[in-house]
Amino acid sequence: MGYRILEPADIPAYLHGRGHWPDLADIQVREVSDGNMNRVFLARSADGTRSLAVKQALPWVRVAGPSWPMSPERADAEARAYEQVAKVAPDKIPAIHGYDPENYALVMEDMSDLEVLRTLLNEGASYGPHTSARIGEFVAQLTFATSDFGMASADRKALIATSVSPELCKITEDVVLAEPYIEHEHNHWHADLTDLAAEFRADTALRTEVADLRHTFMTSAQALLHGDLHTGSVMVGDREGAPVVRVFDPEFSFVGPIGYDLGLYWANALVSEQRARELGTLTDHADQLSLSWQAFETEFRRLWPTRTDTFFDDAYLDRFLRRIWTESVGYAGTEIIRRIIGFAHLTDLTTLPNPAPASRRALLIGRQLILHREELKNPSEVGTVGESF
Amino acid sequence: MGYRILEPADIPAYLHGRGHWPDLADIQVREVSDGNMNRVFLARSADGTRSLAVKQALPWVRVAGPSWPMSPERADAEARAYEQVAKVAPDKIPAIHGYDPENYALVMEDMSDLEVLRTLLNEGASYGPHTSARIGEFVAQLTFATSDFGMASADRKALIATSVSPELCKITEDVVLAEPYIEHEHNHWHADLTDLAAEFRADTALRTEVADLRHTFMTSAQALLHGDLHTGSVMVGDREGAPVVRVFDPEFSFVGPIGYDLGLYWANALVSEQRARELGTLTDHADQLSLSWQAFETEFRRLWPTRTDTFFDDAYLDRFLRRIWTESVGYAGTEIIRRIIGFAHLTDLTTLPNPAPASRRALLIGRQLILHREELKNPSEVGTVGESF
Repeated sequence: MGYRILEPADIPAYLHGRGHWPDLADIQVREVSDGNMNRVFLARSADGTRSLAVKQALPWVRVAGPSWPMSPERADAEARAYEQVAKVAPDKIPAIHGYDPENYALVMEDMSDLEVLRTLLNEGASYGPHTSARIGEFVAQLTFATSDFGMASADRKALIATSVSPELCKITEDVVLAEPYIEHEHNHWHADLTDLAAEFRADTALRTEVADLRHTFMTSAQALLHGDLHTGSVMVGDREGAPVVRVFDPEFSFVGPIGYDLGLYWANALVSEQRARELGTLTDHADQLSLSWQAFETEFRRLWPTRTDTFFDDAYLDRFLRRIWTESVGYAGTEIIRRIIGFAHLTDLTTLPNPAPASRRALLIGRQLILHREELKNPSEVGTVGESF
Repeated sequence: MGYRILEPADIPAYLHGRGHWPDLADIQVREVSDGNMNRVFLARSADGTRSLAVKQALPWVRVAGPSWPMSPERADAEARAYEQVAKVAPDKIPAIHGYDPENYALVMEDMSDLEVLRTLLNEGASYGPHTSARIGEFVAQLTFATSDFGMASADRKALIATSVSPELCKITEDVVLAEPYIEHEHNHWHADLTDLAAEFRADTALRTEVADLRHTFMTSAQALLHGDLHTGSVMVGDREGAPVVRVFDPEFSFVGPIGYDLGLYWANALVSEQRARELGTLTDHADQLSLSWQAFETEFRRLWPTRTDTFFDDAYLDRFLRRIWTESVGYAGTEIIRRIIGFAHLTDLTTLPNPAPASRRALLIGRQLILHREELKNPSEVGTVGESF
């Protein structure tokens, strides 16, 4: 057969043929593609009691078209990541019903009753008490299980080999961890931020610290990451009265530094805080670093006694968690900056009546986080970093 | 055909059949297996003008026999490492004439005119002015070329994936970087060192630092390493009046922390220094850390302007070299200790009339190097570490 691009009209036969849908007379399909990269289809029975999502990776970036080719093998990385998470945190990802490597297509739980966290935050919602705690636990559960603490040495080597992701890692290495600090055609920014963008490009101390974080991203094979854990990769909602948090889109998954996952989430929390401050809708935004870090640390420490390799002692755990903390702070800084003066910007800021003041505050926080990550000791210090240095 | 164990009588037909030896009437073969793991044969024409070595990995550890199985795939790692080095430092390894992956056999330069560095040192020779400088250059040339400075991002990811070496890394992780610090049946030591061995096992600060170095070994994918760079992996001699230094046996090769290669070499220099001190044959032993580090740093800095990725700035190079330095010091410490109270000991010490005094001095140096690696700033401080703390 070989790979073929699925259209909405193909989905009924596709799902039926793969054993996911018994009754071809009772299926309605609509396309709900939303992210930059892939197509997503929802199939639903007339009475709504049966529904499934199909996500297919195209051989290019969806929003750009065939002029920007991109290997659909990123779907393999996504399927592998879901498989790992399903073993340790199945409640925090969509249920995966099947993966079709020939067509780079995942058949998965319909989450259309949930909302993307970023969308809710942009509409003025608070985070609520559950979301960041579940994210912290998610990172702890995935990374502990795929670290040298949760996995036997030989299995880890196999995981590292199968999880290399040259094309998507290269995007991060360039777009996130280099371009914003040099002259590059990808970069753009609000006109009122030209001074800061120039200042950042001229800041040699900042450049060296980003180089350090970038090399760590390239070489530190601590654990399998989500790889793109921003608020657009999280869905939240309520089912039968219980809060639901689902992390999705792990196509950037690879074995890397744990702080990269936490840092991305923190960057987005810090940016949404600046948005809410601007709009006067600030509620619990400032608590999210603390909530996610505490949940991460608590869960990692809870798992620690189950480690496969007891040569690692408790004092080393303390040191390792401190290192993750420091790197998370640094990656939070790089993510904030790249989302304001780099290639892909955040709707949190771009949809503000005047994005400049909040963007400026966020940029200054981002730089402080990178430069002072070794000195910042806890989430409350991070929250006030704009005033501290 | 499949894998078959080569015997001396097989070598003529083997070399002829693979195109390495034209005249079957003029070949003499002898086995010269010496290391723990593999068999080595030398083939030579009657007049000595033609000669070749054949090295075959057995499916077990040679000195132990079939009761200790070990995948012969380690020869693949060795061949890959030689292939990488041949691109950047062909003068520092034996010429490789062919690799036969079916039989895990390398056909290579006959180096029987050279001597193993450890053997010479044990006989009272000095290092001379060339050896450690060439070793430092070797590490710089191999690791720069296979780091994110010398190799494009996607090629690096492929190298990491193909170079994972679960079985041999596991040996290092256990035998070198864990067992000497816990009760383990592999461990043994000279009766006069029982107090220190017990003290080391009870030293919780030492354990935490070794755990840190061990986790770095497992997770830090800086560059392709030799992986077992002791003085028994170096041959030296003289050809047509010029000094020759050849690094061999890179079967433990994998992508790891650069300091592990330098640290192993330093450990062996520090131990040979203690031997020479004991025997009154001390000459230039104390200079070798400085010579190898300076050659490494000089060569790495010489290569730096050729880096593929210029986002990494000069200030980051300084920081990166400092990190390699610190980790090298730590790994030197772990290598010294494991060679005295761990599984496999060094003839440098075991062949002394009384191994205990030199072993005790070396053990104390080893512990200091691990505990104080962040504070030690240069080779001269390392040389006097036994008196410093």
